[in-house]
Amino acid sequence: MQGIGPPLVTPFADDGTVDETRLRELVAWVEDRGVDFLVPCGSNSEAELMTAEERARVVEVVVDEASVPVLAGTGSPGYEETRRATADAAAAGADAALVVTPFYYSHDDAALEAYYRDLADEAEIPVYLYSVPAYTDVKLPVSVVGDLATHPNVAGMKDSSGDVATFVRERRLTRDADFDLMVGSGGVLSHALDAGAAGGVLAVANVAPEAATSVYEAHRDGDSEAARERNEAIVELNHAVTATHGVPGLKAAMRARGAPAGQVRRPFRPVSDDARRELERLVEPL
Amino acid sequence: MQGIGPPLVTPFADDGTVDETRLRELVAWVEDRGVDFLVPCGSNSEAELMTAEERARVVEVVVDEASVPVLAGTGSPGYEETRRATADAAAAGADAALVVTPFYYSHDDAALEAYYRDLADEAEIPVYLYSVPAYTDVKLPVSVVGDLATHPNVAGMKDSSGDVATFVRERRLTRDADFDLMVGSGGVLSHALDAGAAGGVLAVANVAPEAATSVYEAHRDGDSEAARERNEAIVELNHAVTATHGVPGLKAAMRARGAPAGQVRRPFRPVSDDARRELERLVEPL
Amino acid sequence: MQGIGPPLVTPFADDGTVDETRLRELVAWVEDRGVDFLVPCGSNSEAELMTAEERARVVEVVVDEASVPVLAGTGSPGYEETRRATADAAAAGADAALVVTPFYYSHDDAALEAYYRDLADEAEIPVYLYSVPAYTDVKLPVSVVGDLATHPNVAGMKDSSGDVATFVRERRLTRDADFDLMVGSGGVLSHALDAGAAGGVLAVANVAPEAATSVYEAHRDGDSEAARERNEAIVELNHAVTATHGVPGLKAAMRARGAPAGQVRRPFRPVSDDARRELERLVEPL
Amino acid sequence: MQGIGPPLVTPFADDGTVDETRLRELVAWVEDRGVDFLVPCGSNSEAELMTAEERARVVEVVVDEASVPVLAGTGSPGYEETRRATADAAAAGADAALVVTPFYYSHDDAALEAYYRDLADEAEIPVYLYSVPAYTDVKLPVSVVGDLATHPNVAGMKDSSGDVATFVRERRLTRDADFDLMVGSGGVLSHALDAGAAGGVLAVANVAPEAATSVYEAHRDGDSEAARERNEAIVELNHAVTATHGVPGLKAAMRARGAPAGQVRRPFRPVSDDARRELERLVEPL
Repeated sequence: MQGIGPPLVTPFADDGTVDETRLRELVAWVEDRGVDFLVPCGSNSEAELMTAEERARVVEVVVDEASVPVLAGTGSPGYEETRRATADAAAAGADAALVVTPFYYSHDDAALEAYYRDLADEAEIPVYLYSVPAYTDVKLPVSVVGDLATHPNVAGMKDSSGDVATFVRERRLTRDADFDLMVGSGGVLSHALDAGAAGGVLAVANVAPEAATSVYEAHRDGDSEAARERNEAIVELNHAVTATHGVPGLKAAMRARGAPAGQVRRPFRPVSDDARRELERLVEPL
Repeated sequence: MQGIGPPLVTPFADDGTVDETRLRELVAWVEDRGVDFLVPCGSNSEAELMTAEERARVVEVVVDEASVPVLAGTGSPGYEETRRATADAAAAGADAALVVTPFYYSHDDAALEAYYRDLADEAEIPVYLYSVPAYTDVKLPVSVVGDLATHPNVAGMKDSSGDVATFVRERRLTRDADFDLMVGSGGVLSHALDAGAAGGVLAVANVAPEAATSVYEAHRDGDSEAARERNEAIVELNHAVTATHGVPGLKAAMRARGAPAGQVRRPFRPVSDDARRELERLVEPL
Repeated sequence: MQGIGPPLVTPFADDGTVDETRLRELVAWVEDRGVDFLVPCGSNSEAELMTAEERARVVEVVVDEASVPVLAGTGSPGYEETRRATADAAAAGADAALVVTPFYYSHDDAALEAYYRDLADEAEIPVYLYSVPAYTDVKLPVSVVGDLATHPNVAGMKDSSGDVATFVRERRLTRDADFDLMVGSGGVLSHALDAGAAGGVLAVANVAPEAATSVYEAHRDGDSEAARERNEAIVELNHAVTATHGVPGLKAAMRARGAPAGQVRRPFRPVSDDARRELERLVEPL
Repeated sequence: MQGIGPPLVTPFADDGTVDETRLRELVAWVEDRGVDFLVPCGSNSEAELMTAEERARVVEVVVDEASVPVLAGTGSPGYEETRRATADAAAAGADAALVVTPFYYSHDDAALEAYYRDLADEAEIPVYLYSVPAYTDVKLPVSVVGDLATHPNVAGMKDSSGDVATFVRERRLTRDADFDLMVGSGGVLSHALDAGAAGGVLAVANVAPEAATSVYEAHRDGDSEAARERNEAIVELNHAVTATHGVPGLKAAMRARGAPAGQVRRPFRPVSDDARRELERLVEPL
């Protein structure tokens, strides 16, 4: 993958079911604003709140609707579920699978490496590693990333640690491999691009796809300074829809822009009125 | 629930499937050694590594084989999956549902309370709260426990925080309710009983059911000192099969005692030979 | 040390200086209410906010005024300062030194053990280990405690981890040594006594010395159940003056009881009016 | 301050005393290799292992020997000690004071802000804020940084959080103030410069001052790409002398380059032979 891909939120209807109509509209909404690929069933999709069947269906719908490549989130704490979701995604036509580090239980480095190696061996589509310590409390070690990068079916990584020094170390270790190192933290997109990122998978790209893409384009066109300035313009919005208010905040911000975000799923609840107003203020300049 | 209930491990076959024969044998193995109830699909069952269907089947098998009450683990990060697993457990004949705090995503106190309240309203069987910060990074606040305890369909709690002061505070707040406060940390079983615990749901009861039960019985018979001494005798074993070596260590210790533990599931891997020998030494006095 | 020792707060005057008159009054105030020993310059004394000279003077004043043994806090991140404070405490007539694990910088187990061993070799008075992860982010490993316990000049430990299972493991490893294992968490005093504690060094003993002592006495007289009930009666107060409101809360609660607590030192600030009222309510039954 | 300033290690003699001769040599050693200012008594100086008198003397010696500006570390957990150390540093001729967030005890945002505001009001020299969560477990909130930046005697900040997104947010909030935002993490120096940093206070500048300075110079001369490449060349060395091996590793790496690093102070101990060899290998290309 190259460029900007939003980890699509999943619009839910008032009764809590997946709202497929809105999901299709959302695909169109973000594509119209210029993204390079789509990421259904990432962390921001509330994937952990959906059944395996629902996740598979979300991938199907997005693949069906998309005119850009699809990187489908398929990771679960257990290998077998991840294996199955990856096969389902491949069958649905996804281009690659984004696989979060196994969570809930703790595993040592060797177990993490074996997990990804086994999956990459068996998967029908390329595998992207995914490290997101804020959700999983697991930071994929740089040395494990380096070892896995040379596997022919490991195609890249989404690093959502937010740690640019780690990103630089990963880039050094994987430079000679065919390995798309993507950043998962919207606050450091321009810096990650400067450090050699192939692109970004960014929550904020759900609410401001054109802004995220404009950062990428400025960088691609050789204007790193413009990229940083455009990134800086959305850094508070990014903070608000991730660290401060999470998925409910992201969906509220999207609604404020007219995007078909739908409802959140339980145990999530809508943001407070105060938070909503803060988010409305933050999207106003877009 | 009253007394000692092992959060049963799930024996897997060499090919990674659930080994139902061994699971039935395990039910018999622990019942023969004197437990009061059974807890399939708790954290030590590797439930997070199983599909919803597999979990439902494990509960079915255990209910079918058990001659004591069954408290079935049914919690997932999402409400809908938890709701469905709880209904399945009820249909299978489980006596109550053990529901871990929603994890992966973060939720505030009000959301946690609403989650449990909604579930208790809808569930066909009584609900037990389950707080296990070591796995989830969530500690259910004492005030939320107090508020939920009076719900007619919230029957109790498993507190695996290991924090006896928190346990005492929970007991104070729930004393007048019909609320079985169970401890989930084998290292403080006797102390929790002294503090008013109705019993314990303890990983170590998979490997040493008779020892855990003998602690409970001594306490029930009024001999708190004997209870503490018996508990102390297994405190290093308990530490080894939880904090130090986790589920693979628990299964290795069980095998050393001749229990039908089966294999672990990926990404877990068997313990090292050194760890195995340490565990064999720890179970020797049993 | 045996029994209950308050880690004395240090009364500061309005201008921020140590209020020696009030400090002497405080010694009398807690002794009148029945404590077994005194602990100047523990964490609750705001020792980290005082100069080395001020700490030495506080120890001097307390030794001078006390009619019970004195266990003086002398630990700093660096060995040399700790060594000097320990010598000063000995010269002032303190009976033993309470030495917090070195903090700020991280040290491995071998370094922690060497630190205490060197100090115990050189100290003029017996050394007590002190583990308080809430302040230092360091939990002294059980195995290190076991190794140090046999040193002839290591006399005991204050364990403020709040973790009763750890306490039981420490007690097992140090049972045959001449080693006073004290608990530092007021919420689990009775449980720690049941587990073999020699006593407690408890913040709450500054505000409710007679209550803490009555727990100890009930236990000593063989009535563990009464000890637990008396302990339970102060468990919310204990939580409020430690975890919730810290030293400013402790001093506010003391003032509500008429104790000569004095002011806090910067960067601490007095508690809010709401907190003060909550604390007044909590001390009312005393 | 502008440019690169090493947070100077303090060379200790074999008997543990401050080795003033080596300290003077070290000032010359780093100045010869081209640094812009010097930072005695920062975290890497083992300041927390020194007495107030020793720290004051270290500042004196460095001021006396230096031909570049001196930013002296003066922070302690308590206000009074910090106030005094700042006055001493001013008297010794230091140009400004670097003041770590108060640690050990926890303080809310308002207390942190009042602490710095009081100090800035009273200090004879300009104050730099210093946020280093790895040591203190305190991350100075971005909003507090923004509020303090307009104080006429708050001259800047050293941000050692390693978090570039936070750095960007701080830069946005302080852009219009006279506020030198310095980065404290050598792994992200070039990125922080791109984001508007005035320079860096970097442990790695003790061992590779010319490399750190060359990053700064490339950036200053408009060649951000060269700055990033030069930074990348020392990213593993930087990781090794901070996260992996700490101060003992930093001193070992310095010795491998022939720098007058001296010994560490207890409780620190020298690195293992394996670590030493790894560090020797890492400094070889310099």
